[in-house]
Amino acid sequence: MQNENEPTYGAGIWHFATYVDRYATDGYGEPRTVLDAIKLAGKVGDLSVVDLNWPFPPGDISTAEVKAALAEEGLRAIAVTPEFYTGKFAKGGFTNPDAAIRQDAIELVAASAEVGRELGVDYVKLWPGQDGYDYPFQADYTDLWDKSVGAVRELAQQFPDMKFAIEYKPREPRNRMVFSSVARTLLAIEDMGVDNVGVLLDFGHSLYGGETPAEAARMAINRNKLFAIDVNDNFRGWDDDMVVGSVHLLETFEFFFALRDAGWEGVWQLDQFPFREDPVEAARTGVRTMRAFHYALDYLDRAELAAAQARQDALAAQSIAKRALYRALAESETV
Amino acid sequence: MQNENEPTYGAGIWHFATYVDRYATDGYGEPRTVLDAIKLAGKVGDLSVVDLNWPFPPGDISTAEVKAALAEEGLRAIAVTPEFYTGKFAKGGFTNPDAAIRQDAIELVAASAEVGRELGVDYVKLWPGQDGYDYPFQADYTDLWDKSVGAVRELAQQFPDMKFAIEYKPREPRNRMVFSSVARTLLAIEDMGVDNVGVLLDFGHSLYGGETPAEAARMAINRNKLFAIDVNDNFRGWDDDMVVGSVHLLETFEFFFALRDAGWEGVWQLDQFPFREDPVEAARTGVRTMRAFHYALDYLDRAELAAAQARQDALAAQSIAKRALYRALAESETV
Amino acid sequence: MQNENEPTYGAGIWHFATYVDRYATDGYGEPRTVLDAIKLAGKVGDLSVVDLNWPFPPGDISTAEVKAALAEEGLRAIAVTPEFYTGKFAKGGFTNPDAAIRQDAIELVAASAEVGRELGVDYVKLWPGQDGYDYPFQADYTDLWDKSVGAVRELAQQFPDMKFAIEYKPREPRNRMVFSSVARTLLAIEDMGVDNVGVLLDFGHSLYGGETPAEAARMAINRNKLFAIDVNDNFRGWDDDMVVGSVHLLETFEFFFALRDAGWEGVWQLDQFPFREDPVEAARTGVRTMRAFHYALDYLDRAELAAAQARQDALAAQSIAKRALYRALAESETV
Amino acid sequence: MQNENEPTYGAGIWHFATYVDRYATDGYGEPRTVLDAIKLAGKVGDLSVVDLNWPFPPGDISTAEVKAALAEEGLRAIAVTPEFYTGKFAKGGFTNPDAAIRQDAIELVAASAEVGRELGVDYVKLWPGQDGYDYPFQADYTDLWDKSVGAVRELAQQFPDMKFAIEYKPREPRNRMVFSSVARTLLAIEDMGVDNVGVLLDFGHSLYGGETPAEAARMAINRNKLFAIDVNDNFRGWDDDMVVGSVHLLETFEFFFALRDAGWEGVWQLDQFPFREDPVEAARTGVRTMRAFHYALDYLDRAELAAAQARQDALAAQSIAKRALYRALAESETV
Repeated sequence: MQNENEPTYGAGIWHFATYVDRYATDGYGEPRTVLDAIKLAGKVGDLSVVDLNWPFPPGDISTAEVKAALAEEGLRAIAVTPEFYTGKFAKGGFTNPDAAIRQDAIELVAASAEVGRELGVDYVKLWPGQDGYDYPFQADYTDLWDKSVGAVRELAQQFPDMKFAIEYKPREPRNRMVFSSVARTLLAIEDMGVDNVGVLLDFGHSLYGGETPAEAARMAINRNKLFAIDVNDNFRGWDDDMVVGSVHLLETFEFFFALRDAGWEGVWQLDQFPFREDPVEAARTGVRTMRAFHYALDYLDRAELAAAQARQDALAAQSIAKRALYRALAESETV
Repeated sequence: MQNENEPTYGAGIWHFATYVDRYATDGYGEPRTVLDAIKLAGKVGDLSVVDLNWPFPPGDISTAEVKAALAEEGLRAIAVTPEFYTGKFAKGGFTNPDAAIRQDAIELVAASAEVGRELGVDYVKLWPGQDGYDYPFQADYTDLWDKSVGAVRELAQQFPDMKFAIEYKPREPRNRMVFSSVARTLLAIEDMGVDNVGVLLDFGHSLYGGETPAEAARMAINRNKLFAIDVNDNFRGWDDDMVVGSVHLLETFEFFFALRDAGWEGVWQLDQFPFREDPVEAARTGVRTMRAFHYALDYLDRAELAAAQARQDALAAQSIAKRALYRALAESETV
Repeated sequence: MQNENEPTYGAGIWHFATYVDRYATDGYGEPRTVLDAIKLAGKVGDLSVVDLNWPFPPGDISTAEVKAALAEEGLRAIAVTPEFYTGKFAKGGFTNPDAAIRQDAIELVAASAEVGRELGVDYVKLWPGQDGYDYPFQADYTDLWDKSVGAVRELAQQFPDMKFAIEYKPREPRNRMVFSSVARTLLAIEDMGVDNVGVLLDFGHSLYGGETPAEAARMAINRNKLFAIDVNDNFRGWDDDMVVGSVHLLETFEFFFALRDAGWEGVWQLDQFPFREDPVEAARTGVRTMRAFHYALDYLDRAELAAAQARQDALAAQSIAKRALYRALAESETV
Repeated sequence: MQNENEPTYGAGIWHFATYVDRYATDGYGEPRTVLDAIKLAGKVGDLSVVDLNWPFPPGDISTAEVKAALAEEGLRAIAVTPEFYTGKFAKGGFTNPDAAIRQDAIELVAASAEVGRELGVDYVKLWPGQDGYDYPFQADYTDLWDKSVGAVRELAQQFPDMKFAIEYKPREPRNRMVFSSVARTLLAIEDMGVDNVGVLLDFGHSLYGGETPAEAARMAINRNKLFAIDVNDNFRGWDDDMVVGSVHLLETFEFFFALRDAGWEGVWQLDQFPFREDPVEAARTGVRTMRAFHYALDYLDRAELAAAQARQDALAAQSIAKRALYRALAESETV
């Protein structure tokens, strides 16, 4: 389905899971195991890779079973995402006040890295969602920073053959997270002093964190630290994890332009949460829009755009970008 | 513990429950039944009333059991909150596209009203958290409005002896809710053309919705529609349900000033979600701050304040308010 | 240039003015009189009407001169916007603590209404930008409300042959404005008890105020109170007054869909502030995008969309809308 | 008035200026020269230092005159703030697309540094308010970064005896600024490779940029780059420059706690914009609150707080902080 020049498309496997929140505690739809989810991912037809939560939901599924399910669907595991943000880690994984729980978090990630090695993943994704604080005066910020930096450094040194990608996010579930922005995460990575740690840039996290995602991507790429990306959309006030391009079409396109322009060659990956939508259709819609971006980038007159940007001519630059984008989108929707 | 002039303090019983979210799906702490929660509410020592979710969590508890548990703790049910926002209602309660589910929502509320009658509550709380939409173009807004208005009208007419209080909120779990602001809710109530529907004003919802809660309270009181209030705090971007006064001390005090100044005499009620805190201590902290507001309102020189406000003299008005507030707070913390 | 079925396009004349802010106090470009601005508006080629600040900037220009300038460019004055938000009114126009200044505000508006009558405008626009407050405790909210309602009522009764359109906005220049949302403004209009006051809905104000503009439009239209609209764009946190469609393409299209679907037949009007852009080009860009919306609305399969909305099928509804929109946009940019 | 242990208090001299914005283009009050403003600063009675815009407003005032005025009021110039954000620099100072204007910006700063040297300032403040962009696709982000880094490096090398403090801010007047957060600014300073550039942390910029100001301060101090601070307050959505402590009392106190706890010894400085308030009273109010923080820090049980933070015990930590704060505030308001 994909032609040769196209990027590889992927998705977090949770795209195909069901969800709970603090109100619908009984869940948005029926529970699904990771094996069910892999089957759904296979039905999308355009996905080549998936990022897998670990322990594999609901918790009693073996790596061999997962491998077989992936093979069945022609999918590859691009990453493993250790779940050190469940109830046990409510007050933090790497930054938990309890040393034993901090150790558990590190061991959980280490175990996931072993699984990742076995699956041949490109990176272990670190999303320390519970590492942060909720109230003014609650935390010693320097201590949180040091513990975060120290834990990731320790893991990176323990697995020198693996890559670790930190997914930053401003907040949720903690009211404030330690790795909250691209620049903070890059500073933390410097402090670690290791080579195998980088950034996973989630478009939506960047957007609702007040960044310009394309600018954040440039910053990480310029320091050789953009290990992976995720895309989705939101209303700029929360991590809504909506379908790609459903709100911020132009800024998402600009984000992919930044990747292509800088020669970045990773996977174009979905991190959508279709709470009330069909997950296969939602993924297809996301990929269709990403594919349109791919063609739009071919149509884009980059020399003309560079000239407009050199003048900071907003009207001209937008017009050039829109011409390419609208053509590709129109083609995409009429096929 | 409470002296005679003090307001009645209350809390949503969920303050003492445990929570899940989309990450800690296994929960923040051990599950608790409504009976466990009532026992904890009793331990606070300052609460007189509670608002009860219905069906009583986890679902198999009788009204008689609840009555007994309340009596045991010296508590009264001020309200019942029907849960028409669980998984079944993911695409809406009153506004669900499926007529059968809309009917289920109405019947669930009606059944809760019967229970409320039996418990002798002051009002049935309506919080249509799933009534709204997520994406641009998803919904016919007029249709959502008409269904919302119609359903509440139907319930109000079916239970003319009961009061119904609509708790508005900008969003969550839906990306956008129908009853999203005080003014929209007041307009909807007008459209209903019934007398027994009013507003429950949640301080935090108002704050993160961009309102000034004290101003919203005045507006509802001036139309005789402020049936109840809830307080908590947040960082102004989300419904964090933090402990009262942990961030916005002055604006919370102003909110209670608006209530007192207008002669409003309802319950001062907590809607906090102590995800990672001890719920009894969190409630005590909330009540302690509310009690300080109560004393501060006694200290407040209202004539002087009115004169400053007549001049729109921000520095003088704040100084007058702060003098009273800081005195009461200092006394409260040193006791 | 416009074909017969097309809407009438207009612009606030300030689109062609130059601006100052608190940093560039010497201005973004050279000062221009209203006559200069009218000349620029004429150069756009697609505008039929303009909304005029009054007193005509910089203050010493006669109505006759303005009439002549409009005639010269083939433009009509759709509205007059009295400037009761300058330094003198820093603490409010209709709500100023000083009764004499309140009277001045009313007289200024009344004088502008006389000018508007002479120019044959459709409405007098009321934008009480300084009517509000800045600090907690600064104001008596009920008093601000009553003064606002009373002043507009008085004007409406004084000019029963004229229409007055209140442009609501959450904030700026005051930290909080009295007429801050569509629902609050509709409630205020009810309180006025007059027939000739309605709402001017500015897309950007609605968006950054947390509303869904299409939903706000429906609400005002359903009450026969949508007198006028303005469009622009922003980053959802401030009134950036950017070029239409530069960020929120889909939501702007949905807004125009709401107008068309409800049979609303007013002017499609720009309220852009091109601080650093060529104003004529910025206006042309805005009109080009609005014209694409016009064609997209012709392409839109409304029955199919209604069916998807009846199911709250977000993916289908967005797909239907995008198909029409992208086609029209692609045609628009390739011409 | 100040006792020996107290910090030095200061203010930006613009605190005492009058303002314009895009609506009140005629100004909030009568224009004042820098000499008028210095006289008002002297009247506050608690200020020791001021930060001075340069060229000295309105533009024709000599350094000698300013020196004399400062001496007259017993004030010292702590900093000079070159105004490379006026109309001429609308499309950028250091990042202007026009090389000649970029050169003008550098020369303006250099000239201000000479003046600063003559005045004996502690640092030259750099606030590149126009350096950024407004629209998606408008700018080449790497180019903006490189130009910003290069210009500051050039200045730092040209004046090795001077310190330069970059005041970061998320936005305004540009929709997005290059130096937008503490972490981005620290990364930029690293890229400069010079020793005499640091950060000026404005509490309000940090707050509305989504940072926790106390955490941002720790981060800058831990890298020895916190050269100066400014305080004020806002509603977390814009740079409202309100009086210190008028909204976020606890977080402002936490910010000063972070400074004191880390042994930071700079000036406690106001950056308030009292658009509609008496500037002398506004400054006195700000200083009174800062002084209360100073005493509260003496009352604070730091060992107990550290123990609560080590447990991440939000309720205990807040209680400890509040006890100290409320006592000092109550004393401050009753004096």
